[in-house]
Amino acid sequence: MGKQMIKVGLIGLGTIGGSVVKLFENNLSNINKKNDLQLVLERVAERDPEKLKSLKIPTENKLSDAFKLVKDPEIDIVIELIGGIEPARSLIREALENGKYVVTANKDLIATHGDELLELARSKNLNIFYEASVGGGIPLIRPLKYSLVGDRIKRVVGILNGTTNYILTRMSYEGLEFDAALAQAQENGFAEADPSSDIEGRDASYKLMIMAGLAFGCSIDPARVYVEGITGITAGDINYAREIGCVIKLLAIGEELPTGIALRVHPAMIAQSHPLASVNNEFNAVFIEGEAVGDVMLYGRGAGGSPTSTAIMADVVEAARCKSGHAVCSVVENKTTGTVYVPIEELSSRFYLRFLAEDRPGVLAAFSKVFGDHQVSLDMVIQKRRVGDLAEIVLVTHLVSEAAFRTALDQVMNLVMIRPNPSTIRLML
Amino acid sequence: MGKQMIKVGLIGLGTIGGSVVKLFENNLSNINKKNDLQLVLERVAERDPEKLKSLKIPTENKLSDAFKLVKDPEIDIVIELIGGIEPARSLIREALENGKYVVTANKDLIATHGDELLELARSKNLNIFYEASVGGGIPLIRPLKYSLVGDRIKRVVGILNGTTNYILTRMSYEGLEFDAALAQAQENGFAEADPSSDIEGRDASYKLMIMAGLAFGCSIDPARVYVEGITGITAGDINYAREIGCVIKLLAIGEELPTGIALRVHPAMIAQSHPLASVNNEFNAVFIEGEAVGDVMLYGRGAGGSPTSTAIMADVVEAARCKSGHAVCSVVENKTTGTVYVPIEELSSRFYLRFLAEDRPGVLAAFSKVFGDHQVSLDMVIQKRRVGDLAEIVLVTHLVSEAAFRTALDQVMNLVMIRPNPSTIRLML
Repeated sequence: MGKQMIKVGLIGLGTIGGSVVKLFENNLSNINKKNDLQLVLERVAERDPEKLKSLKIPTENKLSDAFKLVKDPEIDIVIELIGGIEPARSLIREALENGKYVVTANKDLIATHGDELLELARSKNLNIFYEASVGGGIPLIRPLKYSLVGDRIKRVVGILNGTTNYILTRMSYEGLEFDAALAQAQENGFAEADPSSDIEGRDASYKLMIMAGLAFGCSIDPARVYVEGITGITAGDINYAREIGCVIKLLAIGEELPTGIALRVHPAMIAQSHPLASVNNEFNAVFIEGEAVGDVMLYGRGAGGSPTSTAIMADVVEAARCKSGHAVCSVVENKTTGTVYVPIEELSSRFYLRFLAEDRPGVLAAFSKVFGDHQVSLDMVIQKRRVGDLAEIVLVTHLVSEAAFRTALDQVMNLVMIRPNPSTIRLML
Repeated sequence: MGKQMIKVGLIGLGTIGGSVVKLFENNLSNINKKNDLQLVLERVAERDPEKLKSLKIPTENKLSDAFKLVKDPEIDIVIELIGGIEPARSLIREALENGKYVVTANKDLIATHGDELLELARSKNLNIFYEASVGGGIPLIRPLKYSLVGDRIKRVVGILNGTTNYILTRMSYEGLEFDAALAQAQENGFAEADPSSDIEGRDASYKLMIMAGLAFGCSIDPARVYVEGITGITAGDINYAREIGCVIKLLAIGEELPTGIALRVHPAMIAQSHPLASVNNEFNAVFIEGEAVGDVMLYGRGAGGSPTSTAIMADVVEAARCKSGHAVCSVVENKTTGTVYVPIEELSSRFYLRFLAEDRPGVLAAFSKVFGDHQVSLDMVIQKRRVGDLAEIVLVTHLVSEAAFRTALDQVMNLVMIRPNPSTIRLML
């Protein structure tokens, strides 16, 4: 196969874009040799002229208008790294309409509009690659698309957000409260100035949607993902977790149950011996449970420009192989529609519950009776710490349906001797 | 794309073959739907007529002669699961000559004749897929072939043999000696009647060769892989390892150093906090260190029919996509020849050393002087246990070249007060 020049256009010179440029500069000859290709980074579009200045490409190839790039007949592959829904969506559509393969790290867009964009790619005999949208440099999308395709995947459980994992690790190792750990994460570059999408679990939920869509082969409706962040976790919760042999992690969980698909993001107490428990700081990992393959875990740096740039480059190489006739990589995402969802109320968990109560006779009897009346059986009761006049009470339930637990909890909270704002965390794995 | 029937022929109904048949029986409609294919298991060749009996395919499709299968014009994809070099090599060559894609789990063959077979496949515009040859169901080959292709891989470190990892885990958890743990592994189906290829490290060395060839993009000469098994490890070594915060694992290590490629399989003491330290029992994992991606770990069941069958099926699907025109998956292994190897003597390690010595004044001074004379500096000396009249002495060195350590050790062993047969284990990670 002769070596046809493959021209790449890059949109967006943020952290990841900068690292992709660096990878092109440092490693391109090696990549081309290894893959028998002749790739070149031809054009870059970026609104901030300062960022374009230092680029080692001819001035006429530095564009301020990304729409010019996606229409440029010279460009074979477009890398979209501006993030968000618009104008990213329109740029990708335009690139496909103009016959270009697309590589993107845009998790929000792929999670919410991936099916539509892949359909367009399919109709044009093109493809969109998005390995970088989940788990940074960890190979996740390809294993789900290609490696585990012969198996029936029952569950995916991921630590998919580096910011929250960094915060929870610092809380656990240094005894920090949430706010102090968040401030430390921001100082060290592991949390953004506005960390809400991370700490409230939305970022993880987008990544979960992408993974679940591939794992279970179905379209995912964002509205059907239960999302709960880590802002309510205290240093006290982490200490109690340790006492019962657990650590607290923000998990993104997708399950195929007999009754449908269940998708949720929430903090969970997991056994210290589980492989996910030792995934610390900014690292990410995904635990996949397949019917035949058993347990598989994929682990690595889930964020940061440099790791993520390797995922982008893998996609660029796949696109280039398509373009140069080394491969015809048609869209393999064949998703069923009409997905049936199991709401979280119908799932069962063990629950950790912490609340404050007046320290007087009859309290234990009162809340125990309420739980008993709702078939919520208790595995553990710890009462050893006082907060002012009040007793801190910690319970762990046996497996119970979310609905039954919530009803019981509402009634317990109505007892006059119990103070409001309990902390509840599910136990898993 | 219309759905053309893709006919698969399977050679060998051992453990993995049986699981592949089961996966076809249980999951084929799901696989076909998900991948928009029409795959069918058409013919099976197996020498043992008993094993063929229960198969749910027409009698005329049950063959005793595998060469008949690889020449059959009806067959599109051949799965080779008989293992060993011959007749597997001839069967695969014949299949390629007859225009068939090949899927194999044969690590010995791919490690030693993979380049030759892939070259033949390339010349026929076909391909050989071998995801199942390393790490059972863990996605390893595809991540190395496709996902990490944009990065420069500096090191791969794997726990690649389930039998030895099971034995070392049982020795560590139950305080067993090697022979007892091996017997337990055999009882529980994790070691073969003749376990020599596993416990002597050869099995892991084949898998390392396959991984290193992909990671570093070069041909690998089996003669240049240093191989040391676990038969010399004692319960005592494992206890000392624990005292210094380590566990003992059989590691397969491939490194790209400034002076060349270094490949070795040997037991090593690794820090308890390293992610590989918690890979227990029959599980396998590979730790990959890339220049840009940082650390990636891939973990799962490294052996057993059921997990391995999912890797086979992923390869069958890739081959079927090629065959049906959904993809043209040309050979991507573009390996350089003339690989320069760094012999283990030129590598540096920290060494753990245990030996028996007469318990009298001057012993410590004597061996310390020898080590000092050879620039082998000691990080740790433990002398606390007696074996009969003798003192058991345990040392840990600082980083030292293998050659210097060996020379010093030879001289120490010549001291009259030191008993022969020391135990040495490298410290890593």
